[in-house]
Amino acid sequence: MLYLVGLGLSDETDITVKGLEVVKKASRVYLEAYTSILLVNQTVLESYYGRPVIVADREMVESDSDEILRDAQTEDVAFLVVGDPFGATTHTDLVLRARELGIPVRTVPNASIMSGIGAAGLQLYNFGQTVSMVFFTDSWRPASFYDRVKENRDIGLHTLVLLDIKVKEQSMENLMKGRKIYEPPRYMTVGQCAAQMLEIEEEKAQGAYGPESLAIGAARVGGRTERFVAGTLKELCEQDEVLGDPLHSMVLLGRRTHELEHDYVREFAVNKETWDRIWKAEYGKQL
Amino acid sequence: MLYLVGLGLSDETDITVKGLEVVKKASRVYLEAYTSILLVNQTVLESYYGRPVIVADREMVESDSDEILRDAQTEDVAFLVVGDPFGATTHTDLVLRARELGIPVRTVPNASIMSGIGAAGLQLYNFGQTVSMVFFTDSWRPASFYDRVKENRDIGLHTLVLLDIKVKEQSMENLMKGRKIYEPPRYMTVGQCAAQMLEIEEEKAQGAYGPESLAIGAARVGGRTERFVAGTLKELCEQDEVLGDPLHSMVLLGRRTHELEHDYVREFAVNKETWDRIWKAEYGKQL
Repeated sequence: MLYLVGLGLSDETDITVKGLEVVKKASRVYLEAYTSILLVNQTVLESYYGRPVIVADREMVESDSDEILRDAQTEDVAFLVVGDPFGATTHTDLVLRARELGIPVRTVPNASIMSGIGAAGLQLYNFGQTVSMVFFTDSWRPASFYDRVKENRDIGLHTLVLLDIKVKEQSMENLMKGRKIYEPPRYMTVGQCAAQMLEIEEEKAQGAYGPESLAIGAARVGGRTERFVAGTLKELCEQDEVLGDPLHSMVLLGRRTHELEHDYVREFAVNKETWDRIWKAEYGKQL
Repeated sequence: MLYLVGLGLSDETDITVKGLEVVKKASRVYLEAYTSILLVNQTVLESYYGRPVIVADREMVESDSDEILRDAQTEDVAFLVVGDPFGATTHTDLVLRARELGIPVRTVPNASIMSGIGAAGLQLYNFGQTVSMVFFTDSWRPASFYDRVKENRDIGLHTLVLLDIKVKEQSMENLMKGRKIYEPPRYMTVGQCAAQMLEIEEEKAQGAYGPESLAIGAARVGGRTERFVAGTLKELCEQDEVLGDPLHSMVLLGRRTHELEHDYVREFAVNKETWDRIWKAEYGKQL
């Protein structure tokens, strides 16, 4: 059996009791470590589980899935995924390959940022499609998120923005010279995301949002040090110190909001007067 | 401290290790039992936790929240919610009241149907807003879901449809006579949902979807007996026996699909030829 086990959002104790039983009994345990991270590292997990964990990077999962699935027709293999196994990313390829090999698959669900973000106080019913924001470079500034955000905003919906993480990346020089030397991990902040969003709005100028649009920055959702900061996109460009350590994510508000959402989120506002003024003028519309 | 603890989707072992620690230590433990249910009952939970659980019905949560919050300034109170505490419903009112009373609040996230539905094989990125479907009566056939589904479909997105549950409902007669006699619980099936959707399309005739639109029926998501059936809305009117026991939910597909989604979901199709034919003609469009 292949078990896809969700680890939840924050630390080693966010695994479910069912998931922990699977981990303890499996022949091999893999940790998918390139689409998201927990706030604790591999050593903490290994000592909590009382057994070794094999870190699976993108290369292994995409090119060497048969090694992961080895003997899973008769043994149990656990594949651990931060969040929910089908949350921010899917491991559809791995499951399809398991099917081809006649390996049964079972999922142990867990919290995903897609539902955990509800702790910010916005109704999950009113979220549209989720978008991803990647680190811009001088030559690569993918803006496909913009049209999707605009689609959500046009019908009044909130948008969850998932922020890029770069782990085990090689510099162009090391890549070209074939040296397996990796850069330190990088995690996009709410400030970087807000700034990139404003840059693209300036280019596209279709009014999907603007510097005065309301948003919520979220850090370490589901963790003991979870933190939310609400403000305009312009304000959120400058709140990284308040938000603190990774992982960050962001919600851009839609107009279709409820009074209770206002009361709840206001608590997190950088500036409550600004928040109230803009909310009153632009938000809280029942569409 | 008020702890909002998610229980996940299926049985007593879906609680997280962190959540179980909270339950074991809290002064009082409430179970919110009117917006969703686990596949196991209160007795199983009590024996698993080794302590009594107070069932909180809608009346208690909405009218007697101060009793739930009693002494939570100095003691720990656990409020258990099936799924994620901020998943399909929010307990914003309770948290706002806790804030007024100076009670700190912490959330222990867990799997929600909103992310768990990813196990059906559709990318969660391509879901629009979630809608609810209630049991129609002769005089009450709320169709507000229709416009929301249409908004999602117009931009190519999938729609998760959450199905009504009726627990602790009184008949009109018992209600009027003030008799606290409750009807047996009812859980909407995929078949009932599909039929109601087709009824409303016939009335509205705006083409949000039709009998040939593709959808996935889901039963007991995240549980050991999880089951998916994929087909046209018309086909899904007749699949309740295959899907089996509650809880059910449904996804209406959007046109914006990926080839991998096709391969994954096809496995669940009532009729693979129909599925392939309609998919090829109407779906798999990159918008």
